[in-house]
Amino acid sequence: MKVDLNCDMGEGYGPWRMGDDEAMLDIVSSANVACGFHAGDPSIMFRTAEIAKRKGVAVGAHPGFNDLHGFGRRVIRGDSPAEIERMVAYQIGAMQAVAALAGHKVTYVKAHGSLNNMANEDEDLALAIARAIKGVDSSLVNVCMPGLLMEKASEQIGIPVAREFFADRTYEDDGTLTSRKKPGSVLHDADAAAERVLRTIQDRAVITTSGKRIPIEIDTICVHGDEPSAVVMARTVRAKLEANGVTIAPFSGS
Amino acid sequence: MKVDLNCDMGEGYGPWRMGDDEAMLDIVSSANVACGFHAGDPSIMFRTAEIAKRKGVAVGAHPGFNDLHGFGRRVIRGDSPAEIERMVAYQIGAMQAVAALAGHKVTYVKAHGSLNNMANEDEDLALAIARAIKGVDSSLVNVCMPGLLMEKASEQIGIPVAREFFADRTYEDDGTLTSRKKPGSVLHDADAAAERVLRTIQDRAVITTSGKRIPIEIDTICVHGDEPSAVVMARTVRAKLEANGVTIAPFSGS
Amino acid sequence: MKVDLNCDMGEGYGPWRMGDDEAMLDIVSSANVACGFHAGDPSIMFRTAEIAKRKGVAVGAHPGFNDLHGFGRRVIRGDSPAEIERMVAYQIGAMQAVAALAGHKVTYVKAHGSLNNMANEDEDLALAIARAIKGVDSSLVNVCMPGLLMEKASEQIGIPVAREFFADRTYEDDGTLTSRKKPGSVLHDADAAAERVLRTIQDRAVITTSGKRIPIEIDTICVHGDEPSAVVMARTVRAKLEANGVTIAPFSGS
Amino acid sequence: MKVDLNCDMGEGYGPWRMGDDEAMLDIVSSANVACGFHAGDPSIMFRTAEIAKRKGVAVGAHPGFNDLHGFGRRVIRGDSPAEIERMVAYQIGAMQAVAALAGHKVTYVKAHGSLNNMANEDEDLALAIARAIKGVDSSLVNVCMPGLLMEKASEQIGIPVAREFFADRTYEDDGTLTSRKKPGSVLHDADAAAERVLRTIQDRAVITTSGKRIPIEIDTICVHGDEPSAVVMARTVRAKLEANGVTIAPFSGS
Repeated sequence: MKVDLNCDMGEGYGPWRMGDDEAMLDIVSSANVACGFHAGDPSIMFRTAEIAKRKGVAVGAHPGFNDLHGFGRRVIRGDSPAEIERMVAYQIGAMQAVAALAGHKVTYVKAHGSLNNMANEDEDLALAIARAIKGVDSSLVNVCMPGLLMEKASEQIGIPVAREFFADRTYEDDGTLTSRKKPGSVLHDADAAAERVLRTIQDRAVITTSGKRIPIEIDTICVHGDEPSAVVMARTVRAKLEANGVTIAPFSGS
Repeated sequence: MKVDLNCDMGEGYGPWRMGDDEAMLDIVSSANVACGFHAGDPSIMFRTAEIAKRKGVAVGAHPGFNDLHGFGRRVIRGDSPAEIERMVAYQIGAMQAVAALAGHKVTYVKAHGSLNNMANEDEDLALAIARAIKGVDSSLVNVCMPGLLMEKASEQIGIPVAREFFADRTYEDDGTLTSRKKPGSVLHDADAAAERVLRTIQDRAVITTSGKRIPIEIDTICVHGDEPSAVVMARTVRAKLEANGVTIAPFSGS
Repeated sequence: MKVDLNCDMGEGYGPWRMGDDEAMLDIVSSANVACGFHAGDPSIMFRTAEIAKRKGVAVGAHPGFNDLHGFGRRVIRGDSPAEIERMVAYQIGAMQAVAALAGHKVTYVKAHGSLNNMANEDEDLALAIARAIKGVDSSLVNVCMPGLLMEKASEQIGIPVAREFFADRTYEDDGTLTSRKKPGSVLHDADAAAERVLRTIQDRAVITTSGKRIPIEIDTICVHGDEPSAVVMARTVRAKLEANGVTIAPFSGS
Repeated sequence: MKVDLNCDMGEGYGPWRMGDDEAMLDIVSSANVACGFHAGDPSIMFRTAEIAKRKGVAVGAHPGFNDLHGFGRRVIRGDSPAEIERMVAYQIGAMQAVAALAGHKVTYVKAHGSLNNMANEDEDLALAIARAIKGVDSSLVNVCMPGLLMEKASEQIGIPVAREFFADRTYEDDGTLTSRKKPGSVLHDADAAAERVLRTIQDRAVITTSGKRIPIEIDTICVHGDEPSAVVMARTVRAKLEANGVTIAPFSGS
């Protein structure tokens, strides 16, 4: 069995840093690199791609809203799907060029924060993102939550997808994440999270908060990078998977 | 005889516009499209590329300093050549992706404003820009003032160049432009400018402000787009050249 | 009878301009000056305040979301009321200081675009804006649509209000503006708009789109500045009012 | 004897943080608060002012270039003195309003980074900053390096000054700081720095790198906040001064 581990990275800006990218790049197999709109800048993107290349980690473009102050987490309404499409294409292209400079290659895209959440609630937005990806390079893989609108839009537009599972979040019966506002929606215990990830991969199903068992195919597991405990969580998940015969490798080459 | 006419375009941002791009795209053969750092945004870039495609106009990436408020015209010191290299690559890649979405293709690069001026005074900066272009796509043509540092850096790095002549500016003996602060340094009479452009192309030499005749090879003529009289000047130059048997066409295909 | 005419101004940024501020400053009695977040910059703010001073026009701070690209018109969710409060205070203080430099004085505040709309749908947001105003200077007048949440929040917090009527928009029975998406919701005929403004002031009531007559007290009339026909509309409204004995003057001194 | 200790603070932006402001606010007597142009945002400014108020620390506006990515450390040429004047006034006013919201009061101004350095090399720029301060509130104290252009401009314009000494930097014979590029120009040993600060205050003179003794009056000592060792250095300087009978207190009330 084989699975990918992905993590958001390169989330600094100018003089500011976030997370321990160096440490995470020793653990994950795919790095979602912020493209300068919600975080990241050309030099941070370059360094992230350069280290990823050296460590055999795949790089993906991680486009977000043009919202540095809100870190792409704010809901922003008012741009048309066509505007979103161009905004996403812009960021993918920027990342491709900087990765090329670092001797690396972008193999996938994962929408960031609110842009990702909103796309799973708005088909036109999901289609716009999928069209942006196809328009730039139709071989780019779109990282999506299984069963939701972004995956469906990707299939409709005709681009490959990688289905993602969140290591530290609980699930609802419809396959969405439990709201962060609900107690228990975020797993903080690394061992419990690792155990659940393993079980979900082996069972090809996840137990939701209601106790229901829903089928889920997983190509990549998302671990977070911006909290102090992130490195421990990521290491624990990786160790647990490897100890149980699951190989960690990019879904898309590196 | 054949020459290209280039003009800066797509210099709006969000709700703001600058210049009459539609009109200029009927006159020029190459559009230098601002890439979002000193002006421009993904939607403006897209629309400019889309219209350019329809009208057979080539598009180039027009990267500048990350200085929206100063429109890329302020001198900004403090970034290393490596940082400049990544910043330029970022903008080229962004433009390539948005152009692809519009069914067009970036064939050249022209540095904007202070970035261009500073590169002609600082070899390390000129080399950084040339490396950025080569790192993204070594077939991209770098638009340079003949005989100055950017042209030399391009040759050293090994990327093609197009040599540029300014329709409305006077020249010094060393091939640089006369400072805008000196009276007479900017030509406002469209006929006089057109006449001088024609003569310079035919003579393969320009008369400097001291009266000296210096040889100059021209692949492309820069006309400005952001002043009310810009359209008249551009039309007059084009008409004069065509009336004298000079074909206007992109130096690099469209 | 006396009424104020207000208009959004100073809506350029860096090299970009919007609207004909010079012309509008000859017509209106109050200038809502953008404070650098959705538009405007220190130099534009200064020039607007300087001209307003010379022409006897009052200046107000016109704070908006930190959304230059979206011109403050996008709905942005994710900031807490406390964050909005500080963001509004910041912009008021900036405007006060720049006005002081120009020898003028800020006498009122009017929230811009989405921030204003959202405040009339979210009491916590309306209270945050009112607290910001009071915290900076409790004598500042808050320009509000009569009967909606922002007016109520201002009363609750204890700051003075000026009730605003839109010259070119139709009204619903609940005192809100008809959505711009509905046909006829924006009046384009200057004479018809002027006639309606006069009648509304004289009747102290407006006829809604359903034909209902709802009472409305008006301290200030908003005319728009960013469309080509804006100057004509504003001049027509002013002329009609003056011809019928209504004096145009700031609600708050100038 | 009495002296002030000042430190740059509030240098985060949106989701990013820099330095340990809480710790530094227990040590210093004056907090130079970034005003949103090179760092800082309304919420960070508010929290900094709020904590400063609680701890009896004075707050100053710390205006810088509009250069978030370069943290105000890049040299930016192209703005006129009049534009700089308005930009500085804007930031002071914004800080005043946010401080008022937090129940505190801005009592001084200290220009940040390149803006400060450039003002000490360009009289017009120094005068523009002094005029901005006077235009907003002529009782605000301008923190200046003794003997340089900013101090002279402040005297000429007629605003009070506080003369500043850098705890961790060596001095040249002309009273300027030794370039950071020269070895030994930055003191890293907290005890040595503290010893030198004490001696300089007691002697009213500093020993330059050439060994020369130049007179220097000190109202405030700058300690840095953005390096890991900053807290140790600041504590050591404070302890040394207090142990030798020097009281640490704001030069301007708090």
